[in-house]
Amino acid sequence: MGLLTDLYELVMADSYLRHGMNEPATFDLFIRGLPSNRAFLVSGGLEQVLYYLEHLRFDDAQLDYLASLGLFSDGFLNYLRGFRFTGDVWAIPEGELFFPLEPLLEITAPRIEAQLIETFLLNTLNFQVMIASKAARVVLAAAGRGVVDFSPRRDHAADAAMKVARASYIAGCTGTSNVLAGMHYGIPVYGTMAHSYVMSFADELSAFRAFARDFPHNAVLLIDTYDTLQGTRNAMAVAQEMASRGHRLRGVRIDSYESIDELAALSRRVRAICDEAGQTEVQVFLSGDLDEYRIEELLERRAAVGAFGVGTRMGTSEDVPNLGGVYKLVEDSSGPKIKLSTGKATLPGRKQVWRVRGNGGAMHDTIALREEPPPPDATALLAQAMAGGRTITQDSLEAMRGRCHDRLAGLRPALRDLHTTPQPPVGLSDRLQDLRDQMYRTNAGQDAEKRERAKKKTRRRL
Amino acid sequence: MGLLTDLYELVMADSYLRHGMNEPATFDLFIRGLPSNRAFLVSGGLEQVLYYLEHLRFDDAQLDYLASLGLFSDGFLNYLRGFRFTGDVWAIPEGELFFPLEPLLEITAPRIEAQLIETFLLNTLNFQVMIASKAARVVLAAAGRGVVDFSPRRDHAADAAMKVARASYIAGCTGTSNVLAGMHYGIPVYGTMAHSYVMSFADELSAFRAFARDFPHNAVLLIDTYDTLQGTRNAMAVAQEMASRGHRLRGVRIDSYESIDELAALSRRVRAICDEAGQTEVQVFLSGDLDEYRIEELLERRAAVGAFGVGTRMGTSEDVPNLGGVYKLVEDSSGPKIKLSTGKATLPGRKQVWRVRGNGGAMHDTIALREEPPPPDATALLAQAMAGGRTITQDSLEAMRGRCHDRLAGLRPALRDLHTTPQPPVGLSDRLQDLRDQMYRTNAGQDAEKRERAKKKTRRRL
Repeated sequence: MGLLTDLYELVMADSYLRHGMNEPATFDLFIRGLPSNRAFLVSGGLEQVLYYLEHLRFDDAQLDYLASLGLFSDGFLNYLRGFRFTGDVWAIPEGELFFPLEPLLEITAPRIEAQLIETFLLNTLNFQVMIASKAARVVLAAAGRGVVDFSPRRDHAADAAMKVARASYIAGCTGTSNVLAGMHYGIPVYGTMAHSYVMSFADELSAFRAFARDFPHNAVLLIDTYDTLQGTRNAMAVAQEMASRGHRLRGVRIDSYESIDELAALSRRVRAICDEAGQTEVQVFLSGDLDEYRIEELLERRAAVGAFGVGTRMGTSEDVPNLGGVYKLVEDSSGPKIKLSTGKATLPGRKQVWRVRGNGGAMHDTIALREEPPPPDATALLAQAMAGGRTITQDSLEAMRGRCHDRLAGLRPALRDLHTTPQPPVGLSDRLQDLRDQMYRTNAGQDAEKRERAKKKTRRRL
Repeated sequence: MGLLTDLYELVMADSYLRHGMNEPATFDLFIRGLPSNRAFLVSGGLEQVLYYLEHLRFDDAQLDYLASLGLFSDGFLNYLRGFRFTGDVWAIPEGELFFPLEPLLEITAPRIEAQLIETFLLNTLNFQVMIASKAARVVLAAAGRGVVDFSPRRDHAADAAMKVARASYIAGCTGTSNVLAGMHYGIPVYGTMAHSYVMSFADELSAFRAFARDFPHNAVLLIDTYDTLQGTRNAMAVAQEMASRGHRLRGVRIDSYESIDELAALSRRVRAICDEAGQTEVQVFLSGDLDEYRIEELLERRAAVGAFGVGTRMGTSEDVPNLGGVYKLVEDSSGPKIKLSTGKATLPGRKQVWRVRGNGGAMHDTIALREEPPPPDATALLAQAMAGGRTITQDSLEAMRGRCHDRLAGLRPALRDLHTTPQPPVGLSDRLQDLRDQMYRTNAGQDAEKRERAKKKTRRRL
């Protein structure tokens, strides 16, 4: 993964090395603003970042390739040969809610190390935060019902399928259809049958019977291949046969619909047929192009549903398919740094984010300088995750999921709304505000001076 | 990658094995309809599919995990232990244009083998086709100017960054910023400096000078850190210094803008400053949230630009962030198969697609049964890529790229339009049409009969 980077990171690093510019520097990774219809973001991907930083090396094949480009100095290639990441990492733990401008990750390392890792960090965190934030909305919409990730066939290649399963599980999904993610991350896996299975037998009832015999403990029957109500009755017949053998049908699934209205009504009729057959424990499972908006509509229309399968629209975060996280220098050996451009401002210095929780899920964050004392009753969001290139602690996936569950459970109504983009409940400490304003004035002056100086120099030469 | 599959594929496969349902079957992978604003699709991802099929195995760790789920029969786990894909693959080669309903891939294999590979095939092909199709639009909009993939930091995790570089290169991009993709696929890599580099020096001119000394053969200077016109003049001063040392400045880059109008005008002023300084060979390079729509606007507004860097919006196919390819049974040992559901119809039997090219880029495709004779002057789109589990031929990436270049160059104006979704120029052969109609009538009858039979059976039991 060492070369999973934009070329310019390596080019700039080579130049910094040649010019002896390798003093310690601190970079913030943060999101500039909330995407449309997002009230909060969910941290995700830190574990992969720490693993990458601990294992980042450049092997002979990679160095030979870089040398073949005819771009790099021998000194730089030698530097890469012995490369180890030696820096410190502070981060907002996975599963925690956070907001724009808050440093999700803060890296302090020799400038070249900090520069070389930029692309991978952004690639990893932009994606997992986007998916965890999307999945949290789906979980909120489902209002306590199960949500299973069904997205692998539409995710953006293999790694995305793995990370969607992971990030959506952190956000509160109950599991995934992705078997490799189940094995690799220990996430519960779900899945039963496709329409093609039902069609492969002489009739629907034969298909259901075969399946119930083959998987007596995990049978969810897909009831909409031919006629959904008749499919439900067939499923009930099989449920009774299973009961006579001491087994229990777990559920029935509806995967196709003309409209949300129709699906909601259909689910109630299916529920009624199950209940009339005495199968009150059988879950009705809905799937097919669902997302938080459709789930909300289904429940508003009193759909009778126990759990949802959610695929494409969650796995590609369809309404917000990319997240603009950035990675900016905030401090170097000369002190705090700031970027001035309109709409691209950064916050100077090493920071901490303090969260104060109030009644009814009220929540307010203050971004402060690291050395400031905590405000009363405040909890720190950033924790040190790595020191000198070594990971300090690593949450379990269940701990991350528990954290997110806790935060979502306590969320105040304004932040649960799926259709607005509220002002984030975030402020700056007085000291950070003062430092920024003061640097803004000074730097604006210096930049103007740099511009003037540059103009004069150029004029002299032209 | 064996377990990168939805659980239900394994569950159904186990059931098929128990019931001896493992006769040869043929599945089509195809796209149901054109996404909004797409006039054609570009084939991509076949090489990864063939590699997967040749190497698909289930090792002890995977089998232990599957056994731990308590779902699968010993017979099935033993079957997986010796698994090899033994089937045939026909496919539309990468870089070729194709349309909905045309089989992009056709698999003939024992039913269980064909079932187990569904998720991976869809994951791979849905994504690479989506990206190649998006990138082809960007390349068309750029009208001969270079386009470089700048997307890694916003792509959906690591594998997506690799496959975006690959698929966009096939579609005609000139290269990528992704160094690992450069190494792995032999794609040209590009990249120079970020704003942070310029800001790390005492002033812009010092930064440009350092960079020009360090990279005398590959210098593209980022000119918009402070004041773009002054940045251009600084770049010209450095270009003259380089010339005096026998080197040549390759380009200047503008990465930020308030509006497309402003960027177009700015690019002309930058071009003029370069030309006045005698640097007519210096390229103006534009980047920053670009896509085919913005590139088209820029050129309509007479932007002076030599090449584009295109990232987020291409790498996540922002306006169409997922593609609904499906994988359906079309033939088994009992003959051609068909699915009836409204809006989900399939075309029965093993097929070939015949393309006839006319004057002025006219193009018409006929989907026919495989055994039909070719129409006059027609070229076959599907070629056999694998026989008995062994890859027959493998195009080079350059061959795929050349194919796509050739097809895009000959495209008629209606298919080049970026803002419409025309009716695809595709028809069915008379024989395929007849077979489908006949099966539709017969199957509709059989399905009704299945439904009736199912109802009677159920009634008897309830």
